[in-house]
Amino acid sequence: MALAEPLVLYTAKVCPYAQRVELALAETGLKKDVDFERYEIDLQNKPQWYQPKINPASKVPAIAYGGPKVPGDQPSPSSTKIAESLVLLEFVADLFPDSSLLPKDPVLRAQTRFFIDAFSTKFSPVSFAFQSGKDASGDALLSAIEHVQALLAPKGFAIGDGSSVTIADLAVAPFFGRMEIVLKNDFGGYPEGEGKKVWETLQTDSRFERWRKYWADLKARDSFKATFDEAYLTERFSSRFAKAREELKASTAK
Amino acid sequence: MALAEPLVLYTAKVCPYAQRVELALAETGLKKDVDFERYEIDLQNKPQWYQPKINPASKVPAIAYGGPKVPGDQPSPSSTKIAESLVLLEFVADLFPDSSLLPKDPVLRAQTRFFIDAFSTKFSPVSFAFQSGKDASGDALLSAIEHVQALLAPKGFAIGDGSSVTIADLAVAPFFGRMEIVLKNDFGGYPEGEGKKVWETLQTDSRFERWRKYWADLKARDSFKATFDEAYLTERFSSRFAKAREELKASTAK
Repeated sequence: MALAEPLVLYTAKVCPYAQRVELALAETGLKKDVDFERYEIDLQNKPQWYQPKINPASKVPAIAYGGPKVPGDQPSPSSTKIAESLVLLEFVADLFPDSSLLPKDPVLRAQTRFFIDAFSTKFSPVSFAFQSGKDASGDALLSAIEHVQALLAPKGFAIGDGSSVTIADLAVAPFFGRMEIVLKNDFGGYPEGEGKKVWETLQTDSRFERWRKYWADLKARDSFKATFDEAYLTERFSSRFAKAREELKASTAK
Repeated sequence: MALAEPLVLYTAKVCPYAQRVELALAETGLKKDVDFERYEIDLQNKPQWYQPKINPASKVPAIAYGGPKVPGDQPSPSSTKIAESLVLLEFVADLFPDSSLLPKDPVLRAQTRFFIDAFSTKFSPVSFAFQSGKDASGDALLSAIEHVQALLAPKGFAIGDGSSVTIADLAVAPFFGRMEIVLKNDFGGYPEGEGKKVWETLQTDSRFERWRKYWADLKARDSFKATFDEAYLTERFSSRFAKAREELKASTAK
């Protein structure tokens, strides 16, 4: 498949929202640096042109689509700039209506979007609260994963008969990937050992069997392997969370 | 146009999220009580079957689609139940792909969804904070309306050349309708007169000219008139906000 117009994806390896869109482009079979340009934004030191010329909200991911073929750091005013990861997942699916990214059946499309909405409202806030140490019990996180698990197809991927990857799977995979790194390395603002304990439960408890298989299937995709740099993320999260743990120790030592 | 399968919409006149879906069905030309059943849920006294049989989250709107044709209060286990207003707006658009509810062009579709996202994140929290009295200054609300206004097409409706109503318009209209009632009647947890002051600014200040025309165009739609009961909402909001105002007076009198 090919694109009718030039496309630049502004992204950052660290960002789960941005990885959603990288996954979607990879799943269509588009080749990075051939069919589209992948432009890495250093979130700690964004280029001056990024906010005024690409995304007023100054976040990744964003896409510049159309206009003349220009390098990512010389954006054309005549391309359309689009932001927000879920908007972009739908956009990639709309560019490739014959891909499996969104089923054709209206009911299955609604179930795809409902799954993403449930993940966003049930999993994301609870996961952030646990990692930051605001809610140091892992129970809410485990319940949230069970809630998402209950919405999965009996086997395979999330939607319908589970035979095809959809944007539902691509919306959640980056977050499970980062959760795995955080938990198994015990990175977080919670007391030492709590992350590893939750990870142990997820790896062994029979009530998470369906989720384990689902997550293994997602991780095994070529698209995931090509867009997820575990060593890089581990190093980034290690320094990010070391500070949270120190602050926690200082406050509980008083 | 007609539906391939039976459809029951569970809704409540008071709820802006539910009105979104009523608007979408009305815009397709479907006739209430002919092409689909509209089932009013009393949110203060929900039927016992609603949560287990229609929506585990117990909220409106929800749609039961497919299965045998049955009355709304006797739902069939073989229909698909779908919830969440934005999921349902897309669902109605998917049922009627030749309607104008979502443009066919991928870029315009993305702009439709981005507009809804911007409204949800920028307008809704600020509007609720003002009405509840948590943020008694109307400045944030006025800024949020300016932010949404800046995303509108130069004339007509929100998206593209403004010539057609899309789900972007239907997502916001119920909230502007309720905001108008709240402000012009000075209903809210803020000090007396603050709501009327904000409404006066919206009605007269030249910086809101584009928004005023847009809102007038939305209100004038048959779909809006058929799904918005101003007298009913005024009465409901009057009692809801009388309590908030009393609490405010009691606390500031101390």
